[in-house]
Amino acid sequence: MAPDRAELARRLDHTLLKPQATAAEVERLCAEALEHGFFSVCVAPCRIPQAARLLAGSAVLPITVIGFPLGFQSTPVKAFEAARAVEQGTREIDMVLNVGALKDRDEAAVAADIEAVARSCGAPVKVILETALLTDAEKVLACRLAAGAGAAFVKTCTGFSGGGATEADVRLLRANVPGHIGVKASGGIRTRAQALALLAAGADRLGASASVAIVTED
Amino acid sequence: MAPDRAELARRLDHTLLKPQATAAEVERLCAEALEHGFFSVCVAPCRIPQAARLLAGSAVLPITVIGFPLGFQSTPVKAFEAARAVEQGTREIDMVLNVGALKDRDEAAVAADIEAVARSCGAPVKVILETALLTDAEKVLACRLAAGAGAAFVKTCTGFSGGGATEADVRLLRANVPGHIGVKASGGIRTRAQALALLAAGADRLGASASVAIVTED
Repeated sequence: MAPDRAELARRLDHTLLKPQATAAEVERLCAEALEHGFFSVCVAPCRIPQAARLLAGSAVLPITVIGFPLGFQSTPVKAFEAARAVEQGTREIDMVLNVGALKDRDEAAVAADIEAVARSCGAPVKVILETALLTDAEKVLACRLAAGAGAAFVKTCTGFSGGGATEADVRLLRANVPGHIGVKASGGIRTRAQALALLAAGADRLGASASVAIVTED
Repeated sequence: MAPDRAELARRLDHTLLKPQATAAEVERLCAEALEHGFFSVCVAPCRIPQAARLLAGSAVLPITVIGFPLGFQSTPVKAFEAARAVEQGTREIDMVLNVGALKDRDEAAVAADIEAVARSCGAPVKVILETALLTDAEKVLACRLAAGAGAAFVKTCTGFSGGGATEADVRLLRANVPGHIGVKASGGIRTRAQALALLAAGADRLGASASVAIVTED
C-alpha cells in the first residue's frame, strides 16, 4: 500500500547541496521541512549551525554530507569533518566512499575510511556508493564493506557524478545488506511516482531537492 | 610570442580529479608529467602520498585540491585538510572558496576561510572562484578578498559545476589582482589553441587533464 502524504514526507531528506546556496535558501529549506514534516534537511557542512538553530526543538533533523561529492579526501580528514559536523548539531552523516580505492580493490582502505567516520562521530552514517560509477560487482562489494564497517545505510548517488537512483540499484543494495541496514535512494528523484517506485523497490529513505513537489503534487 | 613546447609544459598543472581514478591512472599521470616536464600533477588528496613518492627528486610538484569541488566545508575542516596535504608532500594547494558565503556577501567569512587555509599549510594557495556560478561583480569581489587573504593565485573553475575557463574571465581576474598574484585558468581546456589563447589573455598557469594532447598536438 502506498504511504500517505505524511508517511511519504517522513521518508524524505529535504536536500540543498548547490555550492551557491545562500543563507536565505537554507532558511526557506528549513521552513519547508517544518511545514511538510520531512525527516531531515540535508545541507552543506558550513550551513549546519544555521539549520540546527532553525530546527531546534522540532522533529526535523539537520544532516550533512562528508567527503562530498568526490569521496577522495584522506580518511583522517573525513573523520575530522564528520566529528566537527556532529559537534555543530548534525544528527546523521551522508559520506561518499573512496570510489578510487574501491576500483583499486583496496578493500582495507575502503572499509577503514568508513569505519573511521562512523567511529569519530557517533551519529548514523549513510555510505554513498556513487552507483553510477560502479559495476554491479563493485556495488555488491561496497555493500559488504559498508555493512562490515558500521554503516547505518547504504545510499545510491550524490547527484554530482551523473546517473541517479534506479529501482534496480535499490533492489540490488537491499539484497546485499542485512535487514538492520537501511537503503537510501538519491539522485534525480523529482516526482511522486518516482519516489513511490523507489520505496516499493525497497528504499527506506529518499534524498531529494524536489521534496515539496513530491509531497504536494496531485 | 607563443611559448615553445617546453615553456608551455611548464605552465601546465597535469590534472586527474575523477573520483574513480585508480592508482594505476595516477601512476601514468606522474609518468606523463615527468616525460613532458609539466609544472605539477594535481591529484586527489588521498593520492598525494603516491604522487609525492613517484615525483620525488624531480622538478614536477605534487599538488592537490581542498574543499573540492563545492567549497562548502567549514573553515577548520578546510584548514585541517590543507595542513595534512602539505605534511604528506603537497607543494601547492588549490582551494575552492565558499561560494554561498560570497553570494551572501559575507566578506568576512570568505576571507577568513582563505586566510585559515593559507596560514595552516604554508604552501602557495590558489583560490578557485568557480567563475561559472558568479556575476562579474562577484568575481571582482572574490579577487579582492583572495588577494587580501594571502592567495598566491586566483583560479577560474573546478570543472565540476558547469562552465569553464574563458579569455574574458582571465582578463577580468588579471585586472583585479595585484601583479604578484598569479592567474590560473582551468575548466574545459582541451586544445593547444585554447591554452595559448588563455596564456595570451593573461593566465600564468593552466590546469588541464588534456595536457599531453595540448603539448603534443601538431
